[in-house]
Amino acid sequence: MGDPRGVGPEVVVKALSREGLHQVCRPLILGDPLILRRTVKALGLRLEVVELEEGSIVERPEGGLGILPLSRLLSGKEPTEVAPEESSRASFRYLEKAGRMALAGQVEAITTGPVSKGAIAQAGIPFQGHTEFFAGLAGTKDFVMMLVGERLRVALVTTHLPLNEVSKSLKEENILSVVEITGRSLKEYFGIPNPRIAVAAFNPHGGEGGLFGDEEEIISRAVDQARGRDLAVSGPWPADSLFHRAAQGEYDAVVCMYHDQGLIPLKLLHFDTAVNVTLGLSFIRTSVDHGVAYDIAGKGIASSRSMEEAVRMAAKMAVQKRKLQNPKPKSPPPSPSPSRGEGREGV
Amino acid sequence: MGDPRGVGPEVVVKALSREGLHQVCRPLILGDPLILRRTVKALGLRLEVVELEEGSIVERPEGGLGILPLSRLLSGKEPTEVAPEESSRASFRYLEKAGRMALAGQVEAITTGPVSKGAIAQAGIPFQGHTEFFAGLAGTKDFVMMLVGERLRVALVTTHLPLNEVSKSLKEENILSVVEITGRSLKEYFGIPNPRIAVAAFNPHGGEGGLFGDEEEIISRAVDQARGRDLAVSGPWPADSLFHRAAQGEYDAVVCMYHDQGLIPLKLLHFDTAVNVTLGLSFIRTSVDHGVAYDIAGKGIASSRSMEEAVRMAAKMAVQKRKLQNPKPKSPPPSPSPSRGEGREGV
Repeated sequence: MGDPRGVGPEVVVKALSREGLHQVCRPLILGDPLILRRTVKALGLRLEVVELEEGSIVERPEGGLGILPLSRLLSGKEPTEVAPEESSRASFRYLEKAGRMALAGQVEAITTGPVSKGAIAQAGIPFQGHTEFFAGLAGTKDFVMMLVGERLRVALVTTHLPLNEVSKSLKEENILSVVEITGRSLKEYFGIPNPRIAVAAFNPHGGEGGLFGDEEEIISRAVDQARGRDLAVSGPWPADSLFHRAAQGEYDAVVCMYHDQGLIPLKLLHFDTAVNVTLGLSFIRTSVDHGVAYDIAGKGIASSRSMEEAVRMAAKMAVQKRKLQNPKPKSPPPSPSPSRGEGREGV
Repeated sequence: MGDPRGVGPEVVVKALSREGLHQVCRPLILGDPLILRRTVKALGLRLEVVELEEGSIVERPEGGLGILPLSRLLSGKEPTEVAPEESSRASFRYLEKAGRMALAGQVEAITTGPVSKGAIAQAGIPFQGHTEFFAGLAGTKDFVMMLVGERLRVALVTTHLPLNEVSKSLKEENILSVVEITGRSLKEYFGIPNPRIAVAAFNPHGGEGGLFGDEEEIISRAVDQARGRDLAVSGPWPADSLFHRAAQGEYDAVVCMYHDQGLIPLKLLHFDTAVNVTLGLSFIRTSVDHGVAYDIAGKGIASSRSMEEAVRMAAKMAVQKRKLQNPKPKSPPPSPSPSRGEGREGV
């Protein structure tokens, strides 16, 4: 559900009030039933919020939304009036529960609403971000942040680092790891048998043979190693013309050296439809591509587009994963009327 | 004409073989008549290449192309067989002549074809690039490389610099100078009375208040100073979402801190139609957005799209400049049948 004080509850309710998502997955909200009911009411929707017990069989409550209640924050207050510490602690609890359920195989995927890193830290909980939190829970250090739009997928070697510190943190093994996780994930979750991966250069014109920087040597070595492991990978390519080619369909993903290198082209093409995906975990995790937006929370004007896309992508990835694990599935794929008693608590 | 051994002659001939450009300007080619005639023939065109004398009145030779001959490189050879040194020296001569004619007011604008920096240097001529060469000739250090597409204009604070050296070369006065030249040029050449200029941040998320780098402090000070000089400038904006907004029409130009920051979004939107413009010179200069492409030279397959756009933009800028200098023009604007004897040798 994300931070109760942010736009999370609103975008969750809006996204799940439409039929579309229920046709591709069985969603279970982890959050606060009081906040959600208040949100439903404020939006003028007629939608029941049905509290479920952990371990109970999930089916879609008739015309309603199923929620696993993990906090009860309202007592006559507006959601935006909840104390920040309480709200942050609750949002962290949703994440923790989601991670544990995914690890236990109770859910096939997690889609996260927005939380505030700063607010959670102020509530005394060490928290670097969703991605790092889930990676810690899953016990892995090899994870990749990928942003996915209809025409472009970008995977990042470095993320929230001062641009001036990126050069010294580019290591052959890190680049190779990102390329490998990206390749594996494109097969596993996106149904691409032989992913074509382009690796971006770091310097203008790809350094023009060392004239404008030499980070390309490190990148080249990583690309060579990846090729040795039978991956269809190429590069380093000068970044300025690469994304046009990728968007034209020449590549399935572009591995980028720094945040804005990947995010500039992605957001230019897919401003409010891009989905943030964490690769390398043992479970599927997608996220909205925006923050808590406290300034517009409770006003009913937040767009749920990104949440819808994030849930839809999680569902697609889960279906793809099932196909690989079980080429002739015994259980039917998600459908408008899911069969009962499958023992899964939603996607 | 650009380097005789590259695709320059081909794209010049192709671009000027169509009627369109002759309706917006009177082009004069500075180059090699033998090479051009061979190119015309190889392309199967029927087009006369007419040699003109310097100072002669230029009008369009009936159905042909006017050229000021500055070299005669062929003697039975194919253009691609010309010795690299000869070819490079000739291409440098065209540039020098173009610059001098522009400074003397004999032409209103220069559009350059592609030359090879490396090949010119190997021929013993110190040459950093077109932009720096013309700036030196015009006696200015305050020039700006701007890339222009239909939906996006980007001006660069740094250009061909290793990305790892950009941070330390970001100075308040340089950023301010680029903002000012950009603002002035948008008024003078693009007919925008009150240009709205966005300045991009350097770090991811604009540094998030110093959490991921502090170059934004320098940028902020430059933006404040520019505002004090009555420019409609804002920033530093996180770069990832900025270009979407600029492309939607929110800004007339984006000032970028490094090459790929501006070139990635520009080439993504305008792959083969972007024009490279040098601002801050006393004359108009546009350029194709591609190199000599020796590998496809002489094959007849080069696209002249960028050359056409570059000439068209130079013509537009010249018309705009005339309007400002002479709100009620005595001489008619460029037309399909230019009047004789105006004493200008073309645009």
